Amino acid sequence: MAISTRLTCAFGIRHPIVMAPLDAVGGADLAMAVSRGGGLGMLGGGYGDRGWLEAEYAKAGDAPIGCGFITWSMAREPGLLDLALERRPKALMLSFADPEPFARRVLDAGVPLFCQVHSLEHVRRALDVGASAVVAQGVEAGGHGRTQQGTITFVPEVADFLRNAGSDALLIAAGGLADGRGLAAALMLGADGALFGTRYYATREAAAHPDAKAKLLACSGGSTVRTTVYDIVRGKAWPDGYTARLMRNRFVEAWHGRENALVSSQGGVRHAYDDALSDGDFEIANVTVGEAAALIHDLPSAEDLTRRIGEEAEALLSRGADRLD
Amino acid sequence: MAISTRLTCAFGIRHPIVMAPLDAVGGADLAMAVSRGGGLGMLGGGYGDRGWLEAEYAKAGDAPIGCGFITWSMAREPGLLDLALERRPKALMLSFADPEPFARRVLDAGVPLFCQVHSLEHVRRALDVGASAVVAQGVEAGGHGRTQQGTITFVPEVADFLRNAGSDALLIAAGGLADGRGLAAALMLGADGALFGTRYYATREAAAHPDAKAKLLACSGGSTVRTTVYDIVRGKAWPDGYTARLMRNRFVEAWHGRENALVSSQGGVRHAYDDALSDGDFEIANVTVGEAAALIHDLPSAEDLTRRIGEEAEALLSRGADRLD
Repeated sequence: MAISTRLTCAFGIRHPIVMAPLDAVGGADLAMAVSRGGGLGMLGGGYGDRGWLEAEYAKAGDAPIGCGFITWSMAREPGLLDLALERRPKALMLSFADPEPFARRVLDAGVPLFCQVHSLEHVRRALDVGASAVVAQGVEAGGHGRTQQGTITFVPEVADFLRNAGSDALLIAAGGLADGRGLAAALMLGADGALFGTRYYATREAAAHPDAKAKLLACSGGSTVRTTVYDIVRGKAWPDGYTARLMRNRFVEAWHGRENALVSSQGGVRHAYDDALSDGDFEIANVTVGEAAALIHDLPSAEDLTRRIGEEAEALLSRGADRLD
Repeated sequence: MAISTRLTCAFGIRHPIVMAPLDAVGGADLAMAVSRGGGLGMLGGGYGDRGWLEAEYAKAGDAPIGCGFITWSMAREPGLLDLALERRPKALMLSFADPEPFARRVLDAGVPLFCQVHSLEHVRRALDVGASAVVAQGVEAGGHGRTQQGTITFVPEVADFLRNAGSDALLIAAGGLADGRGLAAALMLGADGALFGTRYYATREAAAHPDAKAKLLACSGGSTVRTTVYDIVRGKAWPDGYTARLMRNRFVEAWHGRENALVSSQGGVRHAYDDALSDGDFEIANVTVGEAAALIHDLPSAEDLTRRIGEEAEALLSRGADRLD
């Protein structure tokens, strides 16, 4: 028994599960494990570090994985896109800026283009540039995004938009999904599959600090917040309108809502942040996870986890039909 | 074919659909139509107006409907609870305050108690006082609530909590649900049924101004916001921590984020608000709807709508099983 969707058919994967590009947390070990489990693993190209990307690709060999970039950041070193495309990724995902300047190269390389979207305007743009899939991300998601809509309304709204536009682009739901329940719900909302980020952060292969993973496991629903404070302290030049969801901690309590003061005091605070990062002090350093953390209580291998999510969703779809009399 | 859940069995209803108490928008006509369609209609006891409640109950006769109150407001005239309980409601729903002072009277009357919850702390309290069902409301919901979590993470978190507590209370999902997709997703997330508010606002029987309904139909996903500005201008003494989701309009643009100024200038602004309300000017007056508005494009009868939502969900559950190969 397996769930068959347009996504599983198009990509020859067993489960309609895509791993979110997780920047440096999502290296080759994690991406390969997801693909071994029957999903689509994605290397976290992130802000774009050539040395990191080359090293991870050296590890990955010919493993069937994709790669995702923070578009505005990759744009400062666009050769990274060529580096990724030369590896013939199963999919190339662009997030957080107009995909137009890069879409042609992806398509010309014969690589399916995934565009992350936060509004119907983004969807329109993704279709214009030839995206194979849109990843509709709700506000529950960990990491960067827009403070707009929940996954439970945004996914069906995008599904309606695609249908009305006569588009056959795939629809992948993202934000707040942690298990087979989330995957099954995403399919009911009209998605062809689901993207999991925070859930893969809590796996053995994720390249996150053990104490950051431990903090994630202790999260409950109200433990995260969308904020810009870590972008400010790290000097990341995010475009207007983007915030990142991450765990509340002492640093967030101190600076969230006091962003102007943080900009002014940057030198000293930056120092303390850098120290905390190397010491693994996650009351100061960031644990970039989403609302799904409330549903995560273990640290499995990503391979087992992918199978488990798929099988849970299969059982739910099967039981759902049993409810019909 | 019909969906059978613990909710449909316990209440003898055809579809696992509950109408949200919608204050004065949710009168007897609307509640009765929902129940005729096979759901559970709920009279909107709201802030508590004895004349309104008596008139609506006079209309409703013995119709199989429930009733819901804004608990902290009803507490100022607790005789309203007796008035409702004398009508033997199918369920009595308490929202937005500790249910403990009223729970005993509900249980002694042999009426199932529904408690709306926004946190696990609320769930614990609801179980302590003997609730038959918890209504887990995400931030997407229209009207009042807490700015905490999306429906897609909160519902499974509450489901896990109930299971771990060994509770057999029913779980009803609320917030951002507008159609059979939302209902089917809620069931996959672990709910026994779903509560619809904004969707029923856009029905023929809803006692809302036609221009307010027209504005709802024109909504897209980013059209709503959680705010306190209308509570301030109307002098509603909401407890700390509650905000209401409603449509962005000129009034919201003018005052959201300037709440202190609004408190100071209240006299004149209140006047303009009252005028706008009687004139049906919804750039000044409030249209209290949630994110689900983005998914709503028609004004059916609530009876037809209830059937339609149920049948859409049935088809989705059936098709979901067809995906399994």
